[in-house]
Order: sequence, then C-alpha cells, then structure tokens
Amino acid sequence: MDYKVINFNQKYSLFNDRWSPKVIAEMNDYQFKLVKVKGEFEWHSHEDTDETFIVIEGVLQIKFRDGIVNLKQGEMFVVPKGVEHKPVAENEVKILIIEPRGVLNTGNLENNELTAKNNVWI
Amino acid sequence: MDYKVINFNQKYSLFNDRWSPKVIAEMNDYQFKLVKVKGEFEWHSHEDTDETFIVIEGVLQIKFRDGIVNLKQGEMFVVPKGVEHKPVAENEVKILIIEPRGVLNTGNLENNELTAKNNVWI
Repeated sequence: MDYKVINFNQKYSLFNDRWSPKVIAEMNDYQFKLVKVKGEFEWHSHEDTDETFIVIEGVLQIKFRDGIVNLKQGEMFVVPKGVEHKPVAENEVKILIIEPRGVLNTGNLENNELTAKNNVWI
Repeated sequence: MDYKVINFNQKYSLFNDRWSPKVIAEMNDYQFKLVKVKGEFEWHSHEDTDETFIVIEGVLQIKFRDGIVNLKQGEMFVVPKGVEHKPVAENEVKILIIEPRGVLNTGNLENNELTAKNNVWI
C-alpha cells in the first residue's frame, strides 16, 4: 500500500494550463481532480451525474440559467445532474472537482474547443 | 433549485461534539461529512468502500497495521476499502470525509461506544 499523502498545493505546482483537470486520487469509481481556471467556460451539463466543486484558492462563480453561486476558499457546491451551468472566474481560481471516473469537463459538449483530455494524472 | 453555497467554517460553528460526522451535502449516492476529532479512534475498516479524508484544519494521523500517514490542512488521503485504520489526533482537527451514503463511522465495529448516529445533517 502507498502511504503517500496528497498535498493540493504541491500538486498545483506541477501544472499551469487552465480548464484542464488533473486527476490526483480515486475513491471507488470517483475521481478527485485539480484544475486552475480563469475566464468564462462554456454552458454545459452532465446528464448522468452530480458534480462537486470545492474552492481551494480564489473565487469561482457558477452561473445557472436561473441563478448564480459565488464560491470562495473553504466553500463547496454540488451541481445536480442535468443542470446547465457555466463556471466563470475573474481571476485565476484553484478548484477541486469530485465526480465519477469518465466525466468530461464539457459534459454534453463532447468536442468543444475547451474539452480537455480525460483521466490525466499528476 | 437551492443556490446556497456550503461554507465549511460556518458549518463547523454549528457543533462541537467529536467523532460524530455531520452530513453537509450529497453527490449522487455519496455524502460529504464534517467531523471534529481529538484523541484516538478505534481500529476499524470499511469492507465495501474506500473512504476519503481531507483535513480542513489541524493535523490528523491515520495509523495502519503496517504504516502511517500525517495529514495537515490542504492534504487528503483515500483509505482503500477493507484496510484497517485508526485515526488519531493529538489536538482537535477538523476533517471533511467523503464516502457513500450509509457508511458507519466505526465500519465493521457496528455497536462500538464510538459508533455515531448516521445521516445527521447540519
């Protein structure tokens, strides 16, 4: 068994590309992914799963068709499955995403220019 | 839809009992639970699931039969299913636990004095 602790800041130091989630751990068939984002993402949804956002550093806004949330460090939000959302960040924000293995970052938009390679571990 | 952000520190302000996880959110059939711990927990395992620990504040030690990890703020560890472990904290530590709905805190020890009521929401 590997007794190596996962340190978010150490992992964040390993990459600088944005909107490109990196897998750092698995729990059963779920993955923990770190991502750095800035700017506006695409409207999208995940038809088969909820998606959890935890902000590690910075401020993340998640827009919905009929509402909005502003998440800062030490805060989380679970986007229900099937609900359209659009992440937005005025300044760079570091996020931890938790969702089942295999979920694409752009959800129903499978070949968007922002669609990132899946299952990239760091 | 409820657009209320979950703030860990605000939730921690709502309770002071230790070793008694409080549910703050669900993602599909998984739960996010906050817990405050200090001292030594029982050796136990979860036969059917991995279990994720994220330290929000303080230092958590997780002992294994053949190893140990020390987790501080901003660090996480996934205990694989079936692996005996014993959480220990010299000083109070605030933890976020992620695991499937229905998992008992004492795992295979179902009626231990430290077995907490399950599915308690705050």
